[in-house]
Amino acid sequence: MPAPQQKKPVMRSYLAATRDFASGKTTPRQFLEDSLALLEQWEPRIGAFVCTDLAAAGEAADRSAARWRDGKPRSPIDGMPVGIKDIIETVDMPTEMGSPLFAGWRSQKDAASVRALRDVGAVIVGKTVTTEFAASEPRGTRNPWNTAHTPGGSSSGSAAAVATGIVSAALGTQVISSTVRPASYCGCVGFKPTVNALNRQGSHDFQSQSCTGILGASLDDVWQTADAIVSRVGGDPGTPGLQGPHATPPPVKPQTLAMLETAGWDAASAGAKERLGDCVARLKSAGVDIHTRHNDKAVAALENELVDAAELSHRCNGFEAQWFFRTMRDRDAGKLGRITMERTLKYDSLTLADYRADLKERARIRAVHAALAAHCDACITLAAPGIAPEGLNSTGNPEFGVPSSLLGVPALSLPLFEVDAMPLGLQVIGYFDRDADAFALAAWLMQGC
Amino acid sequence: MPAPQQKKPVMRSYLAATRDFASGKTTPRQFLEDSLALLEQWEPRIGAFVCTDLAAAGEAADRSAARWRDGKPRSPIDGMPVGIKDIIETVDMPTEMGSPLFAGWRSQKDAASVRALRDVGAVIVGKTVTTEFAASEPRGTRNPWNTAHTPGGSSSGSAAAVATGIVSAALGTQVISSTVRPASYCGCVGFKPTVNALNRQGSHDFQSQSCTGILGASLDDVWQTADAIVSRVGGDPGTPGLQGPHATPPPVKPQTLAMLETAGWDAASAGAKERLGDCVARLKSAGVDIHTRHNDKAVAALENELVDAAELSHRCNGFEAQWFFRTMRDRDAGKLGRITMERTLKYDSLTLADYRADLKERARIRAVHAALAAHCDACITLAAPGIAPEGLNSTGNPEFGVPSSLLGVPALSLPLFEVDAMPLGLQVIGYFDRDADAFALAAWLMQGC
Repeated sequence: MPAPQQKKPVMRSYLAATRDFASGKTTPRQFLEDSLALLEQWEPRIGAFVCTDLAAAGEAADRSAARWRDGKPRSPIDGMPVGIKDIIETVDMPTEMGSPLFAGWRSQKDAASVRALRDVGAVIVGKTVTTEFAASEPRGTRNPWNTAHTPGGSSSGSAAAVATGIVSAALGTQVISSTVRPASYCGCVGFKPTVNALNRQGSHDFQSQSCTGILGASLDDVWQTADAIVSRVGGDPGTPGLQGPHATPPPVKPQTLAMLETAGWDAASAGAKERLGDCVARLKSAGVDIHTRHNDKAVAALENELVDAAELSHRCNGFEAQWFFRTMRDRDAGKLGRITMERTLKYDSLTLADYRADLKERARIRAVHAALAAHCDACITLAAPGIAPEGLNSTGNPEFGVPSSLLGVPALSLPLFEVDAMPLGLQVIGYFDRDADAFALAAWLMQGC
Repeated sequence: MPAPQQKKPVMRSYLAATRDFASGKTTPRQFLEDSLALLEQWEPRIGAFVCTDLAAAGEAADRSAARWRDGKPRSPIDGMPVGIKDIIETVDMPTEMGSPLFAGWRSQKDAASVRALRDVGAVIVGKTVTTEFAASEPRGTRNPWNTAHTPGGSSSGSAAAVATGIVSAALGTQVISSTVRPASYCGCVGFKPTVNALNRQGSHDFQSQSCTGILGASLDDVWQTADAIVSRVGGDPGTPGLQGPHATPPPVKPQTLAMLETAGWDAASAGAKERLGDCVARLKSAGVDIHTRHNDKAVAALENELVDAAELSHRCNGFEAQWFFRTMRDRDAGKLGRITMERTLKYDSLTLADYRADLKERARIRAVHAALAAHCDACITLAAPGIAPEGLNSTGNPEFGVPSSLLGVPALSLPLFEVDAMPLGLQVIGYFDRDADAFALAAWLMQGC
């Protein structure tokens, strides 16, 4: 195992850099050159990418530079170096899904989100490492803050690539905790939108809770990437897509926040609880009213509903993915990881009747959460029970990611805490289709917490 | 062009044949042998299949025969020869989507519906011809009733394969008229379910109106195929899936039917109008109350809403498919058909704001239709403006398929009419999630109309 990194990873906001494009102080090509230098420096140690296409990236950056020079960028993220989680299809690179069953596999098309990024001028650096089929089996990416530790998963490579500044944003996905957890572990901003809010066509995550998420260097980089995608390709077919302004929502101070413990609380480290406690104290000092299970019956009711949220999520996901994993096991069960085999077999006997009952239960719990909007501006909690654990055989405890996934609502991991010189995220959980409100509140927290 | 067929195609119900399996009078293997003889006889003249795997089909039929012999069939359709529209993925055969851009392309997985069919013991004979990307560009299949005529589209091969008895059921898809129209033209039962009612994962139709449909030899074959799919893999993720009993709904006489003209009426042939008129007369004689735009304001209101249904459908589909066709045009525009190029370019400038407005309009029209349930058991109309037109360069006028697609409700084409020795379907349009009621009513119409 290599020695822990001495050099702390530093993120690079593309949106901040674009302010210098007009003056010619820098260019998208120069920004990319710096990305490539960071790639060369970090990639051998962190393994964030499955493959890259640097020639194509260079050409795309040159075209973008010309557009900025002419004062005609296609979007605020024109020229932004981005990574694409390798569960999402790309016409020019294989989509391997972290599985030897798809080694070298070609989709022959771009996913909707990828096509949108191309259309707005983003520079696709490469495909980032995903756990096997975006589930729990790790595929070797290391945490750039300490390479002996996991980067989290399933969007492992996307988080590591953003954290090191190689890209300013990367696509991830989340069905349980796959965006907020790696964002927390790697110290970047992670955004899991309202379910269906970003078009998932061409992403191989087949569950109703699945979302295309975005990991980025700042709220601005993340919102602008999300806006670029939804503006071009909408949300999932039949849905209106991400709601909000084109401009990144400016900070808005919350009046009341619900501080959730969730089922993950028992697993939370003392350091993590301390950081969250300090944050809550600062919020109270700033005049924010904090509601918890101990002083608000509605919060307590929601907490009670979330006790078994992980199992209910796994059951929904399990039924929805039966067809896929049955075919994969038939193709070659020996090429499936142990965690995947155990998980999929566990839920292989669920019936349609079970599934319908689980959907009703999920809808009931969603309503309990929605009712909280009447008197809490958002929920906050940890994004993970602690810093990234040591070791690469597990992507860590997913419990804190479960609530927003089960509820289908937006969640953000904000890189506000550090414990033992490793990052930890504060999580903001918003309300259905009110992603912009969650961003505005997050922007205020980034300033004031 | 070959001479028109003299021999009339005859469908073969597998469900009817299974009654003789217990006595040993026949077996799934014998049923398949008859399928293969029909394939040999018809396929050179109709071109229903892109590819077949007869060795695998034979082995699957033998395994099914053993199960029936042991009294342990996996489902009522265990051993049924089926066809899979080539827009739907199969792990063991290419999925070419009617496009040279996907020649020989391998998905490396089964679609959810295909996996379900395998799990219940169905015998997959091969992939059936689809128009290019399940849109309007024909791919050479001929109508078995007269090979100088189109079989309709986009589920061209599925309809022709069912009509000739090669398979007892075949998967199709419908986003505008792609199941009910070819069913009407080829004289088989066509079922377009409630939107989302049959799991579409792994089917390359990316629009919110798209459905996996079933073409079959009888209502029994179709319902049992649908029930087998939904029982194993549900509807689209997050939805409860097709509602109804496992047993095929028995006939139920309607009290009141709305006879719709729809925007297709002006294009309907005199013969088609006459057959529908005769049918309505018989229904009235049988005591069914017939409401039309001329005697019922609610029906008139719905008819008015449907005037521009085709354009609204095309706009919704057009925005939803922009991302896909942009990538296809970039790959090689020369490999796209003329109709596809024109259609996709026409809708390429639609914006998210346009799309959101169109979704609202669609929802409004759906509510107008839903309100009709208070006093009409279902709507009936033609399934196509007339018999299959001569020529293979067009799949025919889709107007009559549009209403159920736009409304997201179940529709059936019933092979009840003939004009000039060619088949024509009576269409039943039901209500959202009430597919079983539509089947029960259709069963009564099959007996009494």
